Amino acid sequence: MTEFEKVEYKPVSVRELLTEMKDISELMIDLAYSAALFHSKELAEEVLELESYVDKLVYLLNMNAMLAARDAEDTEALVSVTVVANATDKISDAAADMAAIVLKDIGVHPLIREAFQKVEEHLTRVEVKPKSFFVDKTVGELKLAPAIGVDIIAIRRGKKWIIDPEDEEIIRESDILIARGAPAGIEEFEEAAEGKIQKLEEEK
Amino acid sequence: MTEFEKVEYKPVSVRELLTEMKDISELMIDLAYSAALFHSKELAEEVLELESYVDKLVYLLNMNAMLAARDAEDTEALVSVTVVANATDKISDAAADMAAIVLKDIGVHPLIREAFQKVEEHLTRVEVKPKSFFVDKTVGELKLAPAIGVDIIAIRRGKKWIIDPEDEEIIRESDILIARGAPAGIEEFEEAAEGKIQKLEEEK
Repeated sequence: MTEFEKVEYKPVSVRELLTEMKDISELMIDLAYSAALFHSKELAEEVLELESYVDKLVYLLNMNAMLAARDAEDTEALVSVTVVANATDKISDAAADMAAIVLKDIGVHPLIREAFQKVEEHLTRVEVKPKSFFVDKTVGELKLAPAIGVDIIAIRRGKKWIIDPEDEEIIRESDILIARGAPAGIEEFEEAAEGKIQKLEEEK
Repeated sequence: MTEFEKVEYKPVSVRELLTEMKDISELMIDLAYSAALFHSKELAEEVLELESYVDKLVYLLNMNAMLAARDAEDTEALVSVTVVANATDKISDAAADMAAIVLKDIGVHPLIREAFQKVEEHLTRVEVKPKSFFVDKTVGELKLAPAIGVDIIAIRRGKKWIIDPEDEEIIRESDILIARGAPAGIEEFEEAAEGKIQKLEEEK
């Protein structure tokens, strides 16, 4: 998983960048629809955070693709990589456009909520409070999926994003967690992250 | 399910249009990734077909939103609808950009295929031949999901699209079916649509 804060050139695997951009653009669309459906400014703000993160990834990918190209043949082959990168950038812009409606005073027209109602799983965004038992545990240790049917799909740590975190990833105080699951599990997950409960229901 | 061929004004439910555009934009992204991964010109061509279909839906939605707006308050409320419609249009354009790589001689760089390899389910696009037992059956009658784990996610009939067809939808000769499923099931599905087998494996 690649992580950075400034857009300085660094050698990064173009393949990994592409995979990450694909995952992020899909996540952003889900987040944007959920933000509109539940009128959630928190989710909408994460979409905008991701949008500026994707911009950085695009720069980095283009820089790495340029350096990889040594001759005309290379550049022809690498053009397709930049097209795909720019397409994921466009998708992320579209998600940001939708998120912006939620953040502006114009608000989300009821028709939009009705149109998006088919979204079955809920997304949530919650900050890990100091007294939460999540702090300093790995994602795997929490066993969220088997216990309450919730998956952490992204962690934001300041300006850094960890998309699709591995089981070994350690959760820190003040991390922003983005998770997906059925409504009941999501509620419990939020309470646990906020330190309101000290165990998951299924463990009692 | 809304269906049309020409962009003349007609009164259509804005909510239904929004739902359809959301479903199509998600389908297009999946199709574009699959087209790149499997270097499938057929899938790429369907992405371009869908793109021009989405353009028509956007016109129609904007026309209907305009007519629905009677005063300043209405227009303010409806602006969010056009933002969402234009965002799905942007997503569909991005998918078309990716599909275009597959159709052009520049080809898909191996890095892109490696980056997209996590796509677990296969998408396919197949034409229903006259001798296929699919002809004149409803989608529900075929019992594709329980028998071989395949779902028909879209039907194209000439320029008309039926997205997420209902069980009652009748399959016609020459329909283009877009389906999703595990590789083994997909292969059998293709053979059945092409009339190479007259029963599904599980029914023999």
